[in-house]
This record gives sequence, structure tokens and C-alpha cells, in this order.
Amino acid sequence: MAEDTHLMQAPKGMRDFYPAEMAVRRHIEDAWRRVSVRCGFDEIEGPTFEHLALYTKKSGEGIVSELFRVEHRGDAELALRPEFTPTLARLVAARAASLPQPIKWFAIPLHYRAERPQRGRLREFIQWNVDFVGHPGTAEATAADRTVLAAADVEVIGCMIALFEELGLSDQTIRIKISHRHVVANLLRSLGLETEEALAAAFALLDRRDKITPEEFTAAATKMGLGAEQVERFDAFARVHVRADAPWSDVAGMLEMDEADLAELHGLRDELERAALLGWCDFDLGIVRGLAYYTGVVFEAHEASGAERAVAGGGRYDNLIELFGGPSLPACGFGMGDVVLGLVLEDQGLMPEAESLMPRPDAFVISSGRDDADAQMMTVMSMLRRAGLHARRTYKATRNIGKLLKEAGRSRARFAVIAEGGDQIGLKDLASGEQESVALGDLVDRIATR
Amino acid sequence: MAEDTHLMQAPKGMRDFYPAEMAVRRHIEDAWRRVSVRCGFDEIEGPTFEHLALYTKKSGEGIVSELFRVEHRGDAELALRPEFTPTLARLVAARAASLPQPIKWFAIPLHYRAERPQRGRLREFIQWNVDFVGHPGTAEATAADRTVLAAADVEVIGCMIALFEELGLSDQTIRIKISHRHVVANLLRSLGLETEEALAAAFALLDRRDKITPEEFTAAATKMGLGAEQVERFDAFARVHVRADAPWSDVAGMLEMDEADLAELHGLRDELERAALLGWCDFDLGIVRGLAYYTGVVFEAHEASGAERAVAGGGRYDNLIELFGGPSLPACGFGMGDVVLGLVLEDQGLMPEAESLMPRPDAFVISSGRDDADAQMMTVMSMLRRAGLHARRTYKATRNIGKLLKEAGRSRARFAVIAEGGDQIGLKDLASGEQESVALGDLVDRIATR
Repeated sequence: MAEDTHLMQAPKGMRDFYPAEMAVRRHIEDAWRRVSVRCGFDEIEGPTFEHLALYTKKSGEGIVSELFRVEHRGDAELALRPEFTPTLARLVAARAASLPQPIKWFAIPLHYRAERPQRGRLREFIQWNVDFVGHPGTAEATAADRTVLAAADVEVIGCMIALFEELGLSDQTIRIKISHRHVVANLLRSLGLETEEALAAAFALLDRRDKITPEEFTAAATKMGLGAEQVERFDAFARVHVRADAPWSDVAGMLEMDEADLAELHGLRDELERAALLGWCDFDLGIVRGLAYYTGVVFEAHEASGAERAVAGGGRYDNLIELFGGPSLPACGFGMGDVVLGLVLEDQGLMPEAESLMPRPDAFVISSGRDDADAQMMTVMSMLRRAGLHARRTYKATRNIGKLLKEAGRSRARFAVIAEGGDQIGLKDLASGEQESVALGDLVDRIATR
Repeated sequence: MAEDTHLMQAPKGMRDFYPAEMAVRRHIEDAWRRVSVRCGFDEIEGPTFEHLALYTKKSGEGIVSELFRVEHRGDAELALRPEFTPTLARLVAARAASLPQPIKWFAIPLHYRAERPQRGRLREFIQWNVDFVGHPGTAEATAADRTVLAAADVEVIGCMIALFEELGLSDQTIRIKISHRHVVANLLRSLGLETEEALAAAFALLDRRDKITPEEFTAAATKMGLGAEQVERFDAFARVHVRADAPWSDVAGMLEMDEADLAELHGLRDELERAALLGWCDFDLGIVRGLAYYTGVVFEAHEASGAERAVAGGGRYDNLIELFGGPSLPACGFGMGDVVLGLVLEDQGLMPEAESLMPRPDAFVISSGRDDADAQMMTVMSMLRRAGLHARRTYKATRNIGKLLKEAGRSRARFAVIAEGGDQIGLKDLASGEQESVALGDLVDRIATR
């Protein structure tokens, strides 16, 4: 029995996509692709598994413990990809000398994490990745000026917002929360957390703050060596947030940043305003992102109600390309998974019925049952399909035309085509109900022109 | 150094898809999807890895030795999918009672085989799968009559041929070679190969006949216990082929089949003729397909010149759904990989230049360099993109309009949009060369209506 269960079920945390689920998946993937192209990003892909070293060397420990290993005798150590950024860094590094810059890429890869499956989190998920690598201007002119990179950040954040708009979400239902790694690091240092390890641990704690109880947060912070007052400052800091379209003096007053960081955020705010996107954004110091490689601005998209996990997250990772053996190139990107996005669309009543997402046939072929009408269905279908039309047919044994026309209607086809075995064929417009007799040789043209 | 090489390269037999390679991949995947929908198949997907038992229990040994295992402590035994049919059988079996029949599904999954990479064969490849499960009519009326299943076979083969036509291939460049497992099994039995094991070994040898030398074939056949005369009969049999549009008496004369099998092939021929597809097909007894689960008609698509491996292959597998715990349902399907298809398109000069496959921008935004023109580029781009237009921009430092217009031309955009910092904006039709000045608020409409 256990063995039969194995044969009948997908592995834990993995999904089967029957046609209805697949129509929803394609609805999301198609929107991702459409919006990416519109925003001037080019599609790329990498292998589903990579050398294990690609992940163990550069990613945060959080990811490494969740890796699925891939094994085959005599092969190198391999792992299913848990995220796309190491692959992207590898691709850039391998061809940095010949690729025109800036590099604007997107990808829609599958990812794998050996976590406990739960709401919004599966072991196999699709993640849209959008990345802007290099300067949004010549390197000579801008390398010294971090504020210029804001134009790249806003192209990336703008692409994310364009996706939300494409699917009917608004700045009332989605908020983009923006923070900066330097700001958080400065605060943590002022609390006495000086080493890279201590900072990384504190980032990780901040990142999972929403998923644990206040008591657990206090216990973990205390274990890092913080006193009661320091834990309170840490906690208060993590709750600082302000709308990005508030007057700049309000924003600057709340953030307590050093001048260079403040200038960078101000530059970002100016570009968001030019792009008419400021109303979607908040500055929120509770956002840090768990991954170790972020170096500057970080951001997450959340349902405004806070009901689900982050819909998307990303930030600036200016050191990563160089770490993978490429030149020193600034970079900014985000990932958005299909699972939480799907839940948010459902929460908001914005997920269309699967049936309405299925392709609609041009013609549904039925048979009058007369003479050679049944055999003629194959001829008619082949003709329609080879002319580029979407043709389906009945497989029912009945030759009751009334029942068959009802089936044609349920198929959502534009036309019913009635094979009668001779040179003339019935054509019924299923919207208007008009029916006519058409020569077999004229059928394709007649459907195309109506 | 070895470690750095790891970080820079994809694992052996895996591919990186930069934008040009990805445009080619999408060209193929989009054609597969378009043709599948047109032929009335619904898209599905399954997990990238399955329980190992799904493959070890039911597939031929050939595939099992090529599996990549997936490992995570405490988890069940898992393997990356080497093919899609076991997943499909599992999906059908799990919902057989509720799914409307017949079931017509397609999928475009990735597959993994730990083979030695060589021309036309990689360790990760994309394979289009098209399957027709159930009877093309009511089960009551047709279960006893194998010839009725030919309508399903021809829908499947017709979908494969529609793909070739979609990509510009013809019956001059591609041949569909059709055989039947019973015919081959009857011949093998007449040579004294009676057991299932002996038959399976002989099928496997026949399947790799084109990849080995005549001497190796003879040696392997001799090892099975065949004498010199029997090896010669075996070899001669494997070379029997005849165009499917030859007179039926010629076909029947060459095939030496028993009556039921002959009737089945005749039924298939009739349906192919009705669908106007007979000219694409040959009957060829050298085709057997390596996989153990085929039960009847088998077929492969080959370049007519024989230059590459099989482009696609499939057949009837009437016992498999039941083996996976579902009801007894006939089924027929094929798989077509992206690697050999890509090679054939290149051989035939039918693979478009990657650049022509990249999405074409509606607008390319440049700056006059005047006043606030640079800053205005962000406003203009955001406006165009949010209106659904594909907008790109220059990232060059130069403000030489002549050079920037050349860059706009290279981008293949329909229009250059020239930000000038004020309420009026330049709009140049890059095909006609016409240029006009447009109010910023009218820009989207102007582009949409031109």
C-alpha cells in the first residue's frame, strides 16, 4: 500500500498541474513575461542544478541547509538551485568582457528548497527574477556617485509594480517596503554588534521577526549579548516606517541615517517620483532580506493588510559579480514567487476562473451521423488545424444534433462545424445562432472572415 | 583554479541560455504550445523530481541506469524525471474517475539523463509531450475494435506533423516512420526468442541498430543465441520499409503481419489519408522504440536524409495507466526534444536569426541633453510602459542626437522618443523617418494610433 501511495502522489511539497491549475500558472507566467519585455528586460535561463560550490561558497547559511543534492556516480557535487542570483552572477562573470552594458535580464526558473511545506511555501516553486547589472549611464561618469544607481533601482522596482498593475493590484492592496542595509548595520553596530558574523545573525533575526513571537525575538536578541534596553531599541527600530510620499523632512527625520546613505535614498525617492511610483512605496526599517549578499537598498512587496508572506523581495548586490570572478559591477534585482502571488490574487478576488483562462476554440466539429459524416470529421479537423485554427471535436457516440450543439457551446467555441459527409458543411455561429451551409473548400476562409 | 572553473561553468551536459539562445528556445516552445492548443490538447505539468519507485517499477532498465538521484536527509528516494510518461500515467490514474474522457494533454517539461553528452543528446533537455488517453468514441462502442483507436493515433501524429509544418519543414525533409510492436514480436518469436526478457533485449538491440556497426549488431544478435541465418533474417527484416501512400497491396505484401495487426495498420492508414497526412509517412519495421511500455503502433520522425537522431518518437501504451493503479485505458503519445529539433532546423536553414526572434520595442527613448531632458527619460519610459508599450532607453553618456538615433535604429524600435525636458516631446518614426513634436500627455495615443 505504501508503495502504491508513492506511485499515485507527487513528492511532498511538489505540485501536479492539471489543465485548470496549469491555466492559472500560465496566466501568471505570461504576465511576468509580458511585463518584463515591456520594461526592456531580455529573457535568460540556466541549468536546473548547478555545482554545489556555487551555493556553498557565496550564499547565506540559511539556504545551504535547504538544498536538495543531485547525485550520479562519478559526477561532481551538484544541487538543485534554491534561487537564481548565483546562476545570474555566473552568467555575467563568464561573459562580462563581451556583454553590452548595462545588462537587463529576467528569468522565470523553477527553484527547490527542502523546507517544511506550509501556506505560501512549497518545495518546488516558480520565481520571476528581474535584474539590472551595471550602471544606468557610462561607468566613467557615475561609478563614484551612488545616487545615479537609483535610476537602475527604479527600473527594477518599476517592473515589479508594472506586474501588480497588470494583474489588477493597486497601491491600496500592495505596498513596496524599502530599507537600506547600511542603515540597519549602523544601528546594529551602535548596539555593540560589530563582527560580520554578529551582523549576519542580527539580519537573519530581523528578517524572521514577523514569523516568531515577541518573546522568541527577545530571547534570540538576548542570546546575541544584547541587554534589555538594547533589545528594546532594536525592536523599536524594526518598527520604523513612513510613506515614501511623505515630505522628505519627515522621512529623513525618522531614518537617522548617515549622509551618504540618506543621499542615496533621496536619489531613489526622486526617481520613484519621476516614474510616478512614489505612492506605492514606504520606507520601512524592519525590512532587511535574509540573504547575505545584499549591499545597499533592499525592498519587499507586501499585501497592505499584511495577510500573506512577502510577495516579492530584492535589493542591491554590488559585490556579487566580482565574487564570482567577474569585474566589479553594481547590480540590483528581485524575485517574485508564484505561490504567494497566487494567494494574494485570490485574497483580493483578482484570480480569474481557470475556465476563462483556457484557450477558446475557433471551431467545434460534430457529425450529423449521415453517410460518411463521422469519417469526414477527421478531414475537417485536419484542414482547420493546418490553417492555424483551434479546432476540437465531439467524441460522443450520440448523433443527436441538439445535444452535440450544447456540447459545442460548453466548449466556448466560436463556431460549430457540422460534418455531413458531402461537399457542403454546416457552419453555426454559436454567439448569434446563425447557421449556414458552406462548401468544404470555403470553410476556412468563411471562419476567418466572419 | 579547479574551484574557479566550477563557479564559471554550467555542470557537464547542462546549458546556459543567454538572451540569443533563449529567443531560440522560446521560438520552439511557443510553436509547440501554439500547435498543441490548435489541435485541442490541454497543457499540464508535473514535478521536476518524482519518487524513485515511479521509474524503477515500470520503465525499461535503459532509463533507470541514467537517473539522477535527488537527496535530502530524511526524505524518500527521489529522482529527476528522465521522461514524462510515468508522471502522466500517475496524473491520469489519480483522477481517472473524475476526468472527462478522452483525455488530451500536452506538456513542455524539462528532463534529465545522466548520459555522456554528445551531438543531439544533453543531460538536461526540454521535451514536448503530447498524449491521447482513452477512446476517440464511447468505450462501449469501440473497446472491442482496435481499428477505432486509429483516430486517436492520427490526432497525435497529426499534431506532430502540424508542428513540422509550423516551423517550415515538409514531407520532403521529414519522414514519419511507423511500425507495430506485434509485428516485430511475431518475427522475433519465429526466430526462437520466446521469453519477455529475450524480446525486450531484441527490441533494445533493434532500437540501437543505427548507432552501432553491422559487426556489433551481428555479435549482439549471436550472443542472444541466434544462428547466422537467423541473424540475417533479423537484419533483413529491420530494413523493410515502404511509403505509406504506396498501394495497400504493396504495403500488406511487405509487412507479413497477422490479420488483426494488419487491420489495425490499415485503419491507421485510412485515418492518415482522411487527414491528408499519408504523404508524410512510411511503414518501417526497423522502428521499435527502446522503452518497454509500448504495446502497439510505434513511430518516429526522422530527417529524410537520416542526418540526425530521431526528432520525435512515440506510440501506443495501452497497459500503462492500469499498471499505475488506474483503470484500463488505451493511450498513445509522443515526445519531441528541443535539441535534435534545433539541429534539424539549422541543417535545413529554417532556424531564424536570434535577433529577429527578440521582441521588437515600440519606443526607444533618448535625451536631447537640454535642461531636465535626462531626468525626463524616466517619466516618459514609465508612462509608455504602464500604457502597455515596450519601451527601452539609451544608457549612453553621449547627447549627440545623430548617434542616439542610430542606436534607436539598431534596437529595431518602431519609434524614437526624444525627451527635451518640457511639455513637448520629439517622436520619430524610424521606418519612414518622419519626425514630429507631440504634447507629453498625447504621446501614448500618438504611438498607439500611428
